[in-house]
Amino acid sequence: MSLKSRLVGTAKRQVKQTLRPVLQRAMAPARTQIPAAYWGLESRHGQGLCLEGVPLKELTRRWGSPLHVVHMAALKRNVERFTAVPAGRTAGCEVFYSYKTNPIPGVLGALHGLGVGAEIISAYELWLALKLGVAPERIVYNGPVKSEASVREAISRGIQLLAANHAEELGTFARIAAEVGRKPRVALRVSTDSGWSAQFGTPITGGAALRAYAQARASSHLDVVGLHAHRGALIRTEGELTGFVEAVLAFTDTLYQELGLDLEVLDLGGSLCTPSAEHIDERDWRLNLTFFRDLPAPDPHAALGISRYVALAVELVEAHYARRGRQRPRIFLEPGRAMTGDTQLLLGRVHTLKEGEDRTWAVLDMGVNHAECVRNEYHQLFHVDRPDAPASRVYTVVGPICTPGDTLYHAKRLPDLEVGDTLAIMDAGAYFVPFANSFSYPQPAIIALEDGHERLLRRAETFEDQVALDVPTGEAPASEKPAAA
Amino acid sequence: MSLKSRLVGTAKRQVKQTLRPVLQRAMAPARTQIPAAYWGLESRHGQGLCLEGVPLKELTRRWGSPLHVVHMAALKRNVERFTAVPAGRTAGCEVFYSYKTNPIPGVLGALHGLGVGAEIISAYELWLALKLGVAPERIVYNGPVKSEASVREAISRGIQLLAANHAEELGTFARIAAEVGRKPRVALRVSTDSGWSAQFGTPITGGAALRAYAQARASSHLDVVGLHAHRGALIRTEGELTGFVEAVLAFTDTLYQELGLDLEVLDLGGSLCTPSAEHIDERDWRLNLTFFRDLPAPDPHAALGISRYVALAVELVEAHYARRGRQRPRIFLEPGRAMTGDTQLLLGRVHTLKEGEDRTWAVLDMGVNHAECVRNEYHQLFHVDRPDAPASRVYTVVGPICTPGDTLYHAKRLPDLEVGDTLAIMDAGAYFVPFANSFSYPQPAIIALEDGHERLLRRAETFEDQVALDVPTGEAPASEKPAAA
Repeated sequence: MSLKSRLVGTAKRQVKQTLRPVLQRAMAPARTQIPAAYWGLESRHGQGLCLEGVPLKELTRRWGSPLHVVHMAALKRNVERFTAVPAGRTAGCEVFYSYKTNPIPGVLGALHGLGVGAEIISAYELWLALKLGVAPERIVYNGPVKSEASVREAISRGIQLLAANHAEELGTFARIAAEVGRKPRVALRVSTDSGWSAQFGTPITGGAALRAYAQARASSHLDVVGLHAHRGALIRTEGELTGFVEAVLAFTDTLYQELGLDLEVLDLGGSLCTPSAEHIDERDWRLNLTFFRDLPAPDPHAALGISRYVALAVELVEAHYARRGRQRPRIFLEPGRAMTGDTQLLLGRVHTLKEGEDRTWAVLDMGVNHAECVRNEYHQLFHVDRPDAPASRVYTVVGPICTPGDTLYHAKRLPDLEVGDTLAIMDAGAYFVPFANSFSYPQPAIIALEDGHERLLRRAETFEDQVALDVPTGEAPASEKPAAA
Repeated sequence: MSLKSRLVGTAKRQVKQTLRPVLQRAMAPARTQIPAAYWGLESRHGQGLCLEGVPLKELTRRWGSPLHVVHMAALKRNVERFTAVPAGRTAGCEVFYSYKTNPIPGVLGALHGLGVGAEIISAYELWLALKLGVAPERIVYNGPVKSEASVREAISRGIQLLAANHAEELGTFARIAAEVGRKPRVALRVSTDSGWSAQFGTPITGGAALRAYAQARASSHLDVVGLHAHRGALIRTEGELTGFVEAVLAFTDTLYQELGLDLEVLDLGGSLCTPSAEHIDERDWRLNLTFFRDLPAPDPHAALGISRYVALAVELVEAHYARRGRQRPRIFLEPGRAMTGDTQLLLGRVHTLKEGEDRTWAVLDMGVNHAECVRNEYHQLFHVDRPDAPASRVYTVVGPICTPGDTLYHAKRLPDLEVGDTLAIMDAGAYFVPFANSFSYPQPAIIALEDGHERLLRRAETFEDQVALDVPTGEAPASEKPAAA
């Protein structure tokens, strides 16, 4: 490294260090924490953070670390909010949980037990839903990659709704339906101008969606009953929901006027936020990285909650159809993160501390291998052992896998950490488990906490599990081949 | 959505569409492809791309899709280059493969059979190395998170080198060594001013590394024999290697002068690039995203190759020590991506095509779930069925998981695709497998191709495998708990 670039580096470092305390005060966000009580956690003297009376640090002691903890009461509360009939209405929405968001059989089984159906996007998820005993009429099948075998099974079983991701899928559906000799209940995924669409859905704008509906209706093998749409971009406000639903409703008018199609099912998809988690703004992220400015915490009470979301969706759809003198369609919802996001937490321990020039590195036994989402979403972090101690010190909180990308929190003010302390990452119930990998470390166990009792949902991966699919070295004869796939 | 924002959106789209063809021509990169022959692939009439005479599309037919294919001849070639004694020298380097980069037992076993040792970063990897029969003196243990049990085992077995990631680890090593009653051969990871350091290593600058060495040497339980360093940022040029090695060598002088420490082992770590893969530049990425400008392909022959890397490392170290009249230390290398990156390819199929307004979406049966690295690295993509057809059409190549983040190639010019066509993603031998997850789709099989023969290394995950660790729903009694972890 040249003298010049070394000097520039030193100068930069010094400017940062000088500006840091000034900027931290001057630009401090209004909210940098969400209180533990929001999740029903309480701090007990000498026990640290407790959930339903159970000290969280006892859980890692009993079940190992890291550890996922599913809070069953929170899950029930969210289901009740989604499935309740809004005040003043005669019917609410029908709810299908997005399997991909948190595909733990113990969680899915609990949701089904509470009356929630399955929203699936792959042959595996169809297999899992049937294995969990979900009735075919409680299954909605979406996604751009449906294997032919799974479409055949879905049609044979008579699932509730088979949604074509794009027009090109309709031909496959019709062909397989003809072979099976059963008419599937079909929806077409459309995309509005709000949020992303990418490979998903056929755009309303420009007429492609209308043409796809005409094509679908022309097939005698398909029973076109529904419309499917996701907003794509997350819904955090009433305005975002209203704009999206109105765009969809306008298209239902087009379908009625142009094709005489009166939809039986309006599937409004997912996209509702987890109130206490939020995508980190690029500017906030850079200020945190460079000047250790605290990340602003979202205000969960300012976000659109489940009950209001459901009530507003029903209100918009009913009002629209009432004005036209027609009965409103059934409304399907496919919540993912809004259903399970805030019902799970991930516990891990401080493995080692490394003193740096300008911060302390806290190296945990969990990192992006188990908590990929923390890279770009605000997730509240609690010091489980000493939650009430002043958060006086800046830590860079990293994981165990040997890459600088394994950083969970770039600059996080926390109470003093000691090796062995337990930390809790909140809102681990959406996209933590499906995006987890086994990079150099086995995946953690998952337990449920229900009425103060612990129950194992998934055991931790063992070393043996990590090589269970491998052919023992040197033992596979060259001629060994599986049956044609 | 307001009329204004709709108009702005339309205007933006039209500007992009008008500018695209102009910019694509005006700003076309010099190189947009790496020829198939670079990897030993050949195009055969009617068979498409073949490796060692085997048509790749036959492989997915026989073994299923997606499919990882390990090219054993390429692996052997890379090992030979790493382990060869450079011309005019009496000794070369000792090579320890970075397990985390591609932890497939079949690959690791082959490397060990060719004389390569194990560079490990976790208790799991220590377990795996011992299970694969690696002799303790062929194991180097690095990383910030070493469990106490694994440190105890490493010391008891007498592994080649136990590297402290940071000074704080030395106390743990000394305590366990005292308990075990055996002196481990210890190195200390230091960081130079080149590349990233983050949670890794103790900085040379400022004297922290020297103080850590003094601390280590003061312990009667540790045998301080080595120095460990990674450049961090990838090494693609001679200059990058030289700058890094010279910084390390200057510190060996300091150690000798200040502490009288003459190192037995100089562990120069990894960081050498895969010549045919390269991090995508931010600007290139944006031009590709917005204007469909082709991504520039790296010139593999312009990158520092393995043989020259080894020769230069030896030359630098020998010259340095020769000038000081001392014998040069043993040189350890810990290649990861340079060893296996270009020895593996990932095959997948086009599941469906979706016509868009300005491009066609090609939805594959593999996405970021199996090929996370393609998000930010150039990886050559081949049309296996028709490799020689003109690449005339722009595709956005996406995977099967239901998220817009599942995009492998934003705008990729390819020969016309049909449903069922096979594609090959090259250089899948580094960080593809360890970062893979089971998001809605099972993980693919891994086979080896050796002298034209196919051999299964790891079978594909099944649906049953995906829930193998789960407690069957409703069957777990509340009292069931594992032994304390």
